[in-house]
Amino acid sequence: MSLQPTDGPEIEQGQRGRRDRLGDAAFDYYMPLELVRGEGVYLFDSAGQRYLDMYNNLPSVGHGHPEVVSAIAAQSATLNTNSRYLNKTMEAYAARLLRLFPAPLGNLVMTCSGSEANDLALRIACAATGRKGIIVTAGACHGSTAAAIEVSPGLRERLPAHVRAIPAPDQRLAGQTALGSWFAARVYEQVQALREAGFGLAALVVDSAFAADGVFTDPPGFLAEAVGVVRTAGGLFIADEVMAGFGRTGALWGFSRHGVVPDLVTLGKPMGNGYPTGGVVAQDQHLACLEDAVFHFNPSGGTSVAAAAGMAVLDVIENKNLVRNSVRVGQALRKGLRRLAKSFPQIAAVRGAGLLTGVDLVARASGAPDAEMSRRAVNALRQNFILAGTAGPRRHALQFRPPLTFAADHVAQFLDIFARVLATLGQAG
Amino acid sequence: MSLQPTDGPEIEQGQRGRRDRLGDAAFDYYMPLELVRGEGVYLFDSAGQRYLDMYNNLPSVGHGHPEVVSAIAAQSATLNTNSRYLNKTMEAYAARLLRLFPAPLGNLVMTCSGSEANDLALRIACAATGRKGIIVTAGACHGSTAAAIEVSPGLRERLPAHVRAIPAPDQRLAGQTALGSWFAARVYEQVQALREAGFGLAALVVDSAFAADGVFTDPPGFLAEAVGVVRTAGGLFIADEVMAGFGRTGALWGFSRHGVVPDLVTLGKPMGNGYPTGGVVAQDQHLACLEDAVFHFNPSGGTSVAAAAGMAVLDVIENKNLVRNSVRVGQALRKGLRRLAKSFPQIAAVRGAGLLTGVDLVARASGAPDAEMSRRAVNALRQNFILAGTAGPRRHALQFRPPLTFAADHVAQFLDIFARVLATLGQAG
Repeated sequence: MSLQPTDGPEIEQGQRGRRDRLGDAAFDYYMPLELVRGEGVYLFDSAGQRYLDMYNNLPSVGHGHPEVVSAIAAQSATLNTNSRYLNKTMEAYAARLLRLFPAPLGNLVMTCSGSEANDLALRIACAATGRKGIIVTAGACHGSTAAAIEVSPGLRERLPAHVRAIPAPDQRLAGQTALGSWFAARVYEQVQALREAGFGLAALVVDSAFAADGVFTDPPGFLAEAVGVVRTAGGLFIADEVMAGFGRTGALWGFSRHGVVPDLVTLGKPMGNGYPTGGVVAQDQHLACLEDAVFHFNPSGGTSVAAAAGMAVLDVIENKNLVRNSVRVGQALRKGLRRLAKSFPQIAAVRGAGLLTGVDLVARASGAPDAEMSRRAVNALRQNFILAGTAGPRRHALQFRPPLTFAADHVAQFLDIFARVLATLGQAG
Repeated sequence: MSLQPTDGPEIEQGQRGRRDRLGDAAFDYYMPLELVRGEGVYLFDSAGQRYLDMYNNLPSVGHGHPEVVSAIAAQSATLNTNSRYLNKTMEAYAARLLRLFPAPLGNLVMTCSGSEANDLALRIACAATGRKGIIVTAGACHGSTAAAIEVSPGLRERLPAHVRAIPAPDQRLAGQTALGSWFAARVYEQVQALREAGFGLAALVVDSAFAADGVFTDPPGFLAEAVGVVRTAGGLFIADEVMAGFGRTGALWGFSRHGVVPDLVTLGKPMGNGYPTGGVVAQDQHLACLEDAVFHFNPSGGTSVAAAAGMAVLDVIENKNLVRNSVRVGQALRKGLRRLAKSFPQIAAVRGAGLLTGVDLVARASGAPDAEMSRRAVNALRQNFILAGTAGPRRHALQFRPPLTFAADHVAQFLDIFARVLATLGQAG
């Protein structure tokens, strides 16, 4: 997370002016880049340079997708209203989206963001269980509202007493134990601790792809035992699908790879290809508490424009077989990365599913996780016109999450450049 | 707040289907109405019937405003990215918006909604003061996140111990005392109570037009003494301009009518004419704490599309002189309502500024506030194709907040129908 502009004076000046007006809050978390246009898997800077985007997951069907843009434009011109009124666009979208979830997930409450969705889901879980305790993973980021930050160890150093962090489901930590059993045991320890502290368990909340933890997707099914522990303890399982949802992991939903049905599912902006939207998909029994215990109405959470954007996104995903593309191209990407790993020992691990991939980089000498090397790799990729990011509590992993339209030739383009970047890093290390 | 559908079986069925899919959460809070189109000050239902919209404040420059729609469409097609990158559209919007605020309000952090803005402002206030206590008015609604609901007595029955409610600034409660002094005294009582309880004062948060309390806008300047009390106590003054901002009260910002400069200002969706956006405008000194103490980054809070929408809204407000229109047409509306009050004693009070108006309805016999009559008035207006709402902790006030393009002929159209509605209500009462 470099706060040092490494570009020329012009960009530096832009950065300073921006810092003044937008506040430090808006400061880039990696090297400053002035963008002017996006199209499909590409972003373009002010000098006309093209960047291959393997980082921005919100425009999940591609930057400026014409069908989604048309839907937003047409619906904005026709009617932008909210759930205060009946509206066929919203009804049709809710019905179509909910058909994509297993029973008994039969209700949708729309919000403006994934943060608002997690904020609401936490309230539903507390109201439904009458308890306060929340379990999350150590690197998790569940959003930017006060309540969402409380359950985001990746965003704050100390957690409130009712929030407990467990390690990411990493087989290296589990050793010889089956990952599912090991992870369930970590959940159970915190269920006990929350009981002893008087909070009890309201919910286990996880990004079903553990992206912010560094991407932990395998083996499929490993989550089931932990979910069983949660249910036995009377808690709810909240699947945060803000990252994993809408085909990112090669399944429509990350939780479905694990053969579990969550109590609550939260969705974020990939739902509208970046149009500000989100939602909570809930089982009847849990939503029943809403009217009594939890205020929920957001006067433009669910709007007809968000629904139109959402509908267009589902059309594109279905018509272009993007879930299948996510599987196929993601496999090719990881296959290529594993091939590189044979030549570059800095690559200690390649993980992922669909078009979400994590790569651990380690120091060649010590074999220890190397956050500095990851940072340098991201910056070197960017110098070579590829956008990537880092993840994990120590940010030692590289994370790749390109638009779902990513294709074989983009993989080839990336692998070629990444090999050169690794060679340079190797020399520097 | 009727939950009983009063229309025919077709709408009732639509409502039930919707309840099933969208959850009870989305249930209309007044009579069901299926909308298909919006244009300027009008909404159209599925039967082609036209409604004069005097309620939906989010599309503040009018439903489907072509300039705003074009800006959203063009920017969505070009680039929808966030504050992670430099982008001239966002920079230009931030610079332009901040020129509309008095010094030292010189920073903008964008969010996806007014709820997220208030959620963030509360965190900034607590971090900046090192205290927890918040003072709000009894009918206030500051949003739908967990933290925003905590400070919204209008949305929940019991407040947490660190949140204290004071009565709305209603001259009838103040009696012979000057409203400003009376209101400041109520603030001071709670400052003391918060000190004694060990919380201290972090902030006074008010909608500067007190819309949800029933609309209390006069006399201009009455807020200043309360703000002085807050500052003396070391607290921050947060002006929630989600309702009052962008010309609603006949000034660009509600706080400016009171001659005060807030520490933090929160903005909501009128900023983008209903495009999901919001923001916190802050003084440097308070924002300085952000980087250390408060997590703030929202990966699509400030987007180039939100900025483009916001820029178009400012263009329309300026080019069409909508702030002046808000003053002039609002005055005509209240003048007409006061004329009606002479014939209809149910109208006990007419308050407001610009295009925000509150009307108290009372029972003819007792002279007591009559929530049931307000409910019936809103429904009767709707039967006569005018959309209005209720406000106040007891919802006994009618609230009118039409698009800022509302014109003299719309006022005449409304007054004519409202006179007939009042005649009917008089007979029934």
